[in-house]
Amino acid sequence: MSTRDDRFTKAATDLGYSFDGELKLGGNYVALVRDGNTIYISGQVPRVGSEVVVTGRVGSEVTLDRAQLAAKICVMRALALLQRSLGSLDGVRSILRITVYMQCTPEFTQQSEVADGASELLFSILGEAGAHTRTSVGVQQLPKNASVELDLIASARGA
Amino acid sequence: MSTRDDRFTKAATDLGYSFDGELKLGGNYVALVRDGNTIYISGQVPRVGSEVVVTGRVGSEVTLDRAQLAAKICVMRALALLQRSLGSLDGVRSILRITVYMQCTPEFTQQSEVADGASELLFSILGEAGAHTRTSVGVQQLPKNASVELDLIASARGA
Amino acid sequence: MSTRDDRFTKAATDLGYSFDGELKLGGNYVALVRDGNTIYISGQVPRVGSEVVVTGRVGSEVTLDRAQLAAKICVMRALALLQRSLGSLDGVRSILRITVYMQCTPEFTQQSEVADGASELLFSILGEAGAHTRTSVGVQQLPKNASVELDLIASARGA
Repeated sequence: MSTRDDRFTKAATDLGYSFDGELKLGGNYVALVRDGNTIYISGQVPRVGSEVVVTGRVGSEVTLDRAQLAAKICVMRALALLQRSLGSLDGVRSILRITVYMQCTPEFTQQSEVADGASELLFSILGEAGAHTRTSVGVQQLPKNASVELDLIASARGA
Repeated sequence: MSTRDDRFTKAATDLGYSFDGELKLGGNYVALVRDGNTIYISGQVPRVGSEVVVTGRVGSEVTLDRAQLAAKICVMRALALLQRSLGSLDGVRSILRITVYMQCTPEFTQQSEVADGASELLFSILGEAGAHTRTSVGVQQLPKNASVELDLIASARGA
Repeated sequence: MSTRDDRFTKAATDLGYSFDGELKLGGNYVALVRDGNTIYISGQVPRVGSEVVVTGRVGSEVTLDRAQLAAKICVMRALALLQRSLGSLDGVRSILRITVYMQCTPEFTQQSEVADGASELLFSILGEAGAHTRTSVGVQQLPKNASVELDLIASARGA
C-alpha cells in the first residue's frame, strides 16, 4: 500500500470510523463522475455506514470541535470514493476545490475553522497534492439534519 | 428529432410548461459558457416566461411536491439551454455536477428529496448520460423569492 | 501595462482600496489552483489588507449599495489573484463561473442585484472575456461575519 493510502487508513483509525463499507447515497444520483482527468464528488454528509453521525446546528447544538469532526468524516468519504475509483490515492494529482456547507446559527462566524478540519486532513494524507481551493458557507439546513456537507473536485493523474 | 429531445418535449408537456421562449436571466451575466467540452450553466430559478412560478419557503409555504416541481422546472431550463447550444440533447456526453439550493425553514431536512425531482428528470431524459454528482443545500433566501435554484456543469461530446 | 490591467488599477482606485498587499486567507488552504488551463479561486470575502471591510447581514445591517461594494471587493481580490498568477489579466481567456453567497435576512430577495456588482466589474475590466455564468444565493452566515463571499473558476489562455 502506498504512503497516502496508509495515511488514509491511519486517519480512519484515529477518527474511530471505518470507511470500508458501502458509501450510501441520499438520493437518485451517483457519488462520482469522471470527465477526462477531472473528478466530481457529490456532496458528502458525515455518514458512517447508514448513520449520519454528526447532526444538528453548529453554534448551538454542535460545538466547533464536533463540527470539525463532521468535516473530517465528509472528506474521508470523498477520499474513500477517490481511492476506490483510482485504485489508490496515489492516483490523485491535485484537489481543485472543496465547498464546505454547515448548518449554523445566525451568529456563528467560524465557518473557516470548521472547514479547516477537512483541509488539514487533505494536507496530512495527500501532502502537496492536497493543496486545494476552498469555499466555506453557513447555511439554513442540510440533508438529514447533517451538520456539515462537503463536495469536491479533484484532478487525476493521466492514464 | 432524437429520442432525448423527444423525451425532453414530453417532459415539458407533462409539466404543463413551455421552455420554447426566451430564457430570461435575472442579471448582468450569461446563461451558458463553454470551455472546451465543459459547459457551465448559470443558476436557474423555476421561471417560465417572465414569471417565477414556484416561490416561497419550502417546509412552510411550499410543500415537498411543489418544491420537486420547482427543481424540475429549473433542470428543464438547464436542459433547454444545453439543447439550444448543442443543437440537440444528443450532444450531451455527461452531466458532471448539479447543485440544488432551496430556501427552507430551519427544520426542513428533505433537501435530497427535493433535488430528486431534478435528478429523476436527468435520468429519464438523458439515460445513462444523465448520471450526475449532486449537492443539495437548504439556504436562507434565493433571487426573486424562488423556492429552488439549480446550477449545472455538463460535458459535451467532442466536435 | 495592458488595457485590462489598467482598467483593474482604475477600478481599485475608484473603489478606494488597494489590492497590492498580501491577499490574506482565512484558513488552511490555498487561494488558487491551476489544472491545465482551468483555474479555481477560493471563496473571497471583502477583505482589504487584514480587515473584512463589509460585515453584517444584507437587508438589515447592510444596504444593497454596501452589499454590491462587498461583491466588487471580492471580485477584485479574485482578479488580483489571477493577475499575479498569470502575470497579466490578458492571460484570462474566460470567466467560467462565479458563485456569490451573501448573508441576508429571510425577506431579502435581491441576490441577483448584489451579484450584479461583481458581474459589472468583470465585464468592465475584462470585456467579452468577462462574460460568465453565475449563481447567487442568500445564506445564513459567512466566515468572519462577511456580508458577501464569492468564488470563481476561470480559463487561462493556453501556454
